Amino acid sequence: MKKVHVNASREYDVLIGRGILDNSGEFIASVKNPSKIAIITDSVVSGLYLDRVVKSLSKLSCEIVSFIFKNGEQSKNINVYSDILEFLAENELSRTDMILALGGGVVGDMAGFAAATYLRGIDFIQIPTTFLAAIDSSVGGKTAIDLRAGKNLCGAFYQPSLVICDCETLDTLSDEIFADGSAEAIKYGMLRDTRLMKYFEEGIVKENIEDIIFECVSIKRDIVNADEYDRGMRQILNLGHTFGHSIEKLSDFSVSHGHAVAIGTAIVARLSESLGKLSKSDREKLEKILLKNNLQIATDYDKRSIALTALLDKKRNGNTINFILPVRIGESEIYKVGTDEIENLLSEEILRGH
Amino acid sequence: MKKVHVNASREYDVLIGRGILDNSGEFIASVKNPSKIAIITDSVVSGLYLDRVVKSLSKLSCEIVSFIFKNGEQSKNINVYSDILEFLAENELSRTDMILALGGGVVGDMAGFAAATYLRGIDFIQIPTTFLAAIDSSVGGKTAIDLRAGKNLCGAFYQPSLVICDCETLDTLSDEIFADGSAEAIKYGMLRDTRLMKYFEEGIVKENIEDIIFECVSIKRDIVNADEYDRGMRQILNLGHTFGHSIEKLSDFSVSHGHAVAIGTAIVARLSESLGKLSKSDREKLEKILLKNNLQIATDYDKRSIALTALLDKKRNGNTINFILPVRIGESEIYKVGTDEIENLLSEEILRGH
Repeated sequence: MKKVHVNASREYDVLIGRGILDNSGEFIASVKNPSKIAIITDSVVSGLYLDRVVKSLSKLSCEIVSFIFKNGEQSKNINVYSDILEFLAENELSRTDMILALGGGVVGDMAGFAAATYLRGIDFIQIPTTFLAAIDSSVGGKTAIDLRAGKNLCGAFYQPSLVICDCETLDTLSDEIFADGSAEAIKYGMLRDTRLMKYFEEGIVKENIEDIIFECVSIKRDIVNADEYDRGMRQILNLGHTFGHSIEKLSDFSVSHGHAVAIGTAIVARLSESLGKLSKSDREKLEKILLKNNLQIATDYDKRSIALTALLDKKRNGNTINFILPVRIGESEIYKVGTDEIENLLSEEILRGH
Repeated sequence: MKKVHVNASREYDVLIGRGILDNSGEFIASVKNPSKIAIITDSVVSGLYLDRVVKSLSKLSCEIVSFIFKNGEQSKNINVYSDILEFLAENELSRTDMILALGGGVVGDMAGFAAATYLRGIDFIQIPTTFLAAIDSSVGGKTAIDLRAGKNLCGAFYQPSLVICDCETLDTLSDEIFADGSAEAIKYGMLRDTRLMKYFEEGIVKENIEDIIFECVSIKRDIVNADEYDRGMRQILNLGHTFGHSIEKLSDFSVSHGHAVAIGTAIVARLSESLGKLSKSDREKLEKILLKNNLQIATDYDKRSIALTALLDKKRNGNTINFILPVRIGESEIYKVGTDEIENLLSEEILRGH
């Protein structure tokens, strides 16, 4: 088992290993002794892992209640959030109790936001069960729900007390859902020059998944420790996300987060190349790696729609928006653009590829 | 004009004076230059002060939008909160923009929670227009909405950037609503031995309202500075609130916050006397002051109902709950009680008075 220690406004460990789900109870006991734990999970994950987690928690002398909502991004809304809060209140959870988020990013984001706001904050633990959640939403304390107007427009910065990442849970993921995580991991590769890109270039991802998660979580930890509240350097984690969110939204979320981020990353790579910031060979290498890992690099949406939806992005600051542009594999920079310039920056070639 | 400087996780000033509403624009300009301001207010306050505030803000070169919801505690729910968030998103407010809460406690709590969570936090300014809001919810950063299961069960700690308290706005309050503030101010008198009690004892409140607000805000500032996140000493601000919340809830909010807190304070004073902690003369003096200021000191609800609703209070910690007991006028202490003991502590005499 590997461990990444995060030293944010709250200190916590991310535990990474195989089969460690069955030790959840003892890991939690080392952090806290709640009298109640509310497990928040979804209709798919509950069938796979809820019993095992409950069994492990039953070794603690605490009451366990579970709230299961319908799997999918469509559930990440204010109605399900409200249902979770009422569930917590009905079960009389107090400030010394705990929420456990068991599932992918949707579960983690929403259970985390509920934990951040129920009684103005109670402890929560994350057990991410997708590759994407393991390396993205489980680290850094960004919790959120979607509004009608856009993704993640409402939320809070709130750190978990512990993250238990059992790599075995990733074995059941479909290729498509696995690729969501690959997109995010490749993003980390673009941000920091580590061994990460090699795994994806050579197609040796699954056999090295524990190392890859450790590497990604460590990179994110370093960035988040330096800028927990997203006022400066942390923004580079949004590489590929501004246009990624646009594509997710325009597709009405039929294009999933990671797949959209992959396209968004390829778009900003081509944009960066067109601005003379990224070399052709690095752009081509990135595109090749994305394609090799079941991801796409182009979109059919027109530049006007992409630009307009990008304006709703949280990265917007009044009349400017910060894009993250890769300048070489392993380094990216913040690039400020006027909101009225976005559309002009986007050519057919940049959106569709060469 | 008086000024109280608050030095919490965010530093800000509380400005207290007469007629200063018309200077809102210049006060805001000294803090920030947003490109948009969203004013959140209610159906009563908007008719009284919205035009004046908009007129003052129009001197700033920024866009102003307003969201008006139905006046009353019934509005402090997740549906109106959701409507506010969607309104902010539709109007494309970004992280560099600002929310202005114009109104009483319901407006401040809900607009503050929206500000805390929209895009994971944007700046907000409070213009409290009730006595209660001026001395209570406008200071200390507790934002909240009610759940079906209870009051303020969902929220965040989030500090405003500025509070503008125009004492003239209190002139339009009915005696009943004014008394809501008196209850809270008398609570501060019970917590700290200042000149506060004298004003209420001698019936010279309205002519000294600026001093009273300054005094209350200063007391709250000192307590909040010492314990912003309510882990210790800040709990004493809950004097009268545990049973107060029970009474509000049991009455389906037909008994307002301040009136309920007054009864709650009288109950814990009698409870404290029965435990030998508060003298009979201090208890009698408190009761006399409450009655003189249009407040009540007794409830008709039975001890079982009061005890059961108190269990849902946020002050609960697993199997114990912290009551705040006055030990003399000017001093209170935290008193931990097992959740199964509450009902037995409450006698007819304690609930109904002598």
